Amino acid sequence: MPHVVIVGGGFGGLAAARALRSLPVRITLIDKTNHHLFQPLLYQVATAMLMPGQIAAPIRQVLRHHRRTTVLLGEVTGVDTRNHAVEIRTGEGREERVSYDFLVLATGVQHSYFGKDEYARHAPGMKTMADATMVRNRILSAFEEAEGETDEARRRAGLTFVLVGGGPTGVEMAGAIAELSRLSMREDFRRINPQETRIVLVEAGPRLLPPFHPSLSESTARHLRGMGVEVMTGKLVSSIDENGCRVGDEWIASRNVIWTAGVAASPAAEWLGLSKGKVRVRFDLSAPGRPEIFVIGDVAYYEQDGRPLPGVAQVAMQMGRHVARVIQARLLNNAPPPPFHYTDKGNMAVVGRDFAVFENRRFKFSGRAAWLVWSMIHILFLALPNMRLTVFWQWVWSYFTEQRGSRIIVDPRNYSNP
Amino acid sequence: MPHVVIVGGGFGGLAAARALRSLPVRITLIDKTNHHLFQPLLYQVATAMLMPGQIAAPIRQVLRHHRRTTVLLGEVTGVDTRNHAVEIRTGEGREERVSYDFLVLATGVQHSYFGKDEYARHAPGMKTMADATMVRNRILSAFEEAEGETDEARRRAGLTFVLVGGGPTGVEMAGAIAELSRLSMREDFRRINPQETRIVLVEAGPRLLPPFHPSLSESTARHLRGMGVEVMTGKLVSSIDENGCRVGDEWIASRNVIWTAGVAASPAAEWLGLSKGKVRVRFDLSAPGRPEIFVIGDVAYYEQDGRPLPGVAQVAMQMGRHVARVIQARLLNNAPPPPFHYTDKGNMAVVGRDFAVFENRRFKFSGRAAWLVWSMIHILFLALPNMRLTVFWQWVWSYFTEQRGSRIIVDPRNYSNP
Repeated sequence: MPHVVIVGGGFGGLAAARALRSLPVRITLIDKTNHHLFQPLLYQVATAMLMPGQIAAPIRQVLRHHRRTTVLLGEVTGVDTRNHAVEIRTGEGREERVSYDFLVLATGVQHSYFGKDEYARHAPGMKTMADATMVRNRILSAFEEAEGETDEARRRAGLTFVLVGGGPTGVEMAGAIAELSRLSMREDFRRINPQETRIVLVEAGPRLLPPFHPSLSESTARHLRGMGVEVMTGKLVSSIDENGCRVGDEWIASRNVIWTAGVAASPAAEWLGLSKGKVRVRFDLSAPGRPEIFVIGDVAYYEQDGRPLPGVAQVAMQMGRHVARVIQARLLNNAPPPPFHYTDKGNMAVVGRDFAVFENRRFKFSGRAAWLVWSMIHILFLALPNMRLTVFWQWVWSYFTEQRGSRIIVDPRNYSNP
Repeated sequence: MPHVVIVGGGFGGLAAARALRSLPVRITLIDKTNHHLFQPLLYQVATAMLMPGQIAAPIRQVLRHHRRTTVLLGEVTGVDTRNHAVEIRTGEGREERVSYDFLVLATGVQHSYFGKDEYARHAPGMKTMADATMVRNRILSAFEEAEGETDEARRRAGLTFVLVGGGPTGVEMAGAIAELSRLSMREDFRRINPQETRIVLVEAGPRLLPPFHPSLSESTARHLRGMGVEVMTGKLVSSIDENGCRVGDEWIASRNVIWTAGVAASPAAEWLGLSKGKVRVRFDLSAPGRPEIFVIGDVAYYEQDGRPLPGVAQVAMQMGRHVARVIQARLLNNAPPPPFHYTDKGNMAVVGRDFAVFENRRFKFSGRAAWLVWSMIHILFLALPNMRLTVFWQWVWSYFTEQRGSRIIVDPRNYSNP
């Protein structure tokens, strides 16, 4: 039975595995974590609304009824394209080669500091669950430390949050930190007033949410300002260190700079001997010169109507399903399906507890209605029914009580082992 | 206004804070984590049933309506008994002195390797949330690594779990690992059969659950054996390394030895200039020669009817409330309350999804009825209403689906920062 190896259990890889299930193939899905992460809600973990387990589903649990699918936890170190094998290393440092007849690379993106990797230490970004729990620890610890701080300038710097990058993640984080400090924590401190928290959202371009219509950028900025967020557009962050960052001409003293800007492709291209970056795929999503290797999701570069497709979950899922159709046609010697074509069902971003923006080719709207649509869609797309129910419950609970779901700091230094 | 400083936000410290709320005192509660941990359910986090946030409540959130209570995150480094001040160090390394009129030490216990601290690396124990999430990572990773392992002996060692210590934690962990492997993960693997997992529970004494009646120890052992757990009593663990442990005369190859045995007092006694260990308190729970300092909970040594009180939540909570009465009497120049007397409402331990043992002075019973009582009591004692609802929901869901709540591995090595 032909063997399909999928690398990456994100939206693209999981969609491919599901779509391939009914074909006469063996499937191996390899990921370096044991869970499918629902990235659009990662900012809610980082801001203590949801618990990690509510947005991360064990991949093997999701696929447990797929009897011909094997899930392996391991890190891909390379692809032997000549001999059709993936090289992986598992947690214990053991190396293994996994042969494939078809290979699907769905390895996504990491965040990028545009060459300034030294920023990473002072301005963490968020792509993995480990990142998000670390950012959560830092945000919650900032308030704890400010409560214990006696020096006024240091206390102010401790209560200043700067978000570098005004895309959806930056906008969502700014709104969530505003709510956390101004609503959820309102009564929790005695020495500081968390409502005095300063939140700065910096965007280098002329407006927030660049991919959206300018009127939605405008209403988002207005809503954020109403929540007490300082929105700075057209401003470059020129340096970051442990004491703050320089935004345009202004130095902002802050102990909490969070990176919500650029992303860079994972090393899939290097594995295929191509130049670094995204892999420019053909109409059937195969890699150039490698008809048995497909590249999908954020790591794929595909132009449609003269523009590259955005790195969003919908694109990855539609690509995963398309690859299954291509493989099916090859196995059955049928005519290949038509070239991949992305159907955009619309894009959303959310700000706090009752405002979102939505836009597709025909409609655009913002406000509470958009927020309700956003909530329903995000709940429906969670991978396990238990997650859908507990996230729904948490949101309803938090809407009425203004409390968060999980404000705990789990510091690895708190191991009690001697 | 007199100032009461409480060190430790566990069951004892929190009960004291709540009972002192109505008195004309200022209160400062200091803890080295930001959360009150519901320790009786820590084993459920370690075995992926519950998420950390479901059993850990931010202390300042719990006490947010206590207007005269300040919560500080910091580690106590010493007590200046002469000048009535506690010395603390906060997360940023800043030192602070907090003066007190009354001091309540409720600092609990750590686990103890009986002098063999080198065991800690190979046989982690569980007292903090950081411990429990690390044990969870190790248990879940054991199955992942076994699925990728080709060497048969190593695979078997990877699927062998040894629990050292047959008290409530050992019994509960053994039952939970049996369920995790034999029920929840039944369909999830392709190369290994998780139902072949070997689970060994070792107790040095003659029977499991030493504080309980022998008939309950017997029924617990029988129930565990029925779940496929090997129960070894009267066997000493004489060595532990990364490949396994020696139990009596037998070497058990295991990559997963978990320490569920002894505990040792936290350093409260040293702070008071007393000899290491628990602090032998007077009838009003004050430290010897220090009427303004009280020691409660697991770190206090108090004999009643010729026997020391056990280190359980009930004792700590009753002590916390008693201290509030003593302080009230002193402030109002009233007659002191009668000596502390512990009212034992009963003890429980639970094995898996439908068996528990219960015993108090009048009754003892085991089975499903005890399990239902156990479930209700544990839900009621969670610190926040949201936790009660989500834990209740998770248990109902898991009872019917046999699935766990949170089987994710969050490995700090998975930071995506460059």
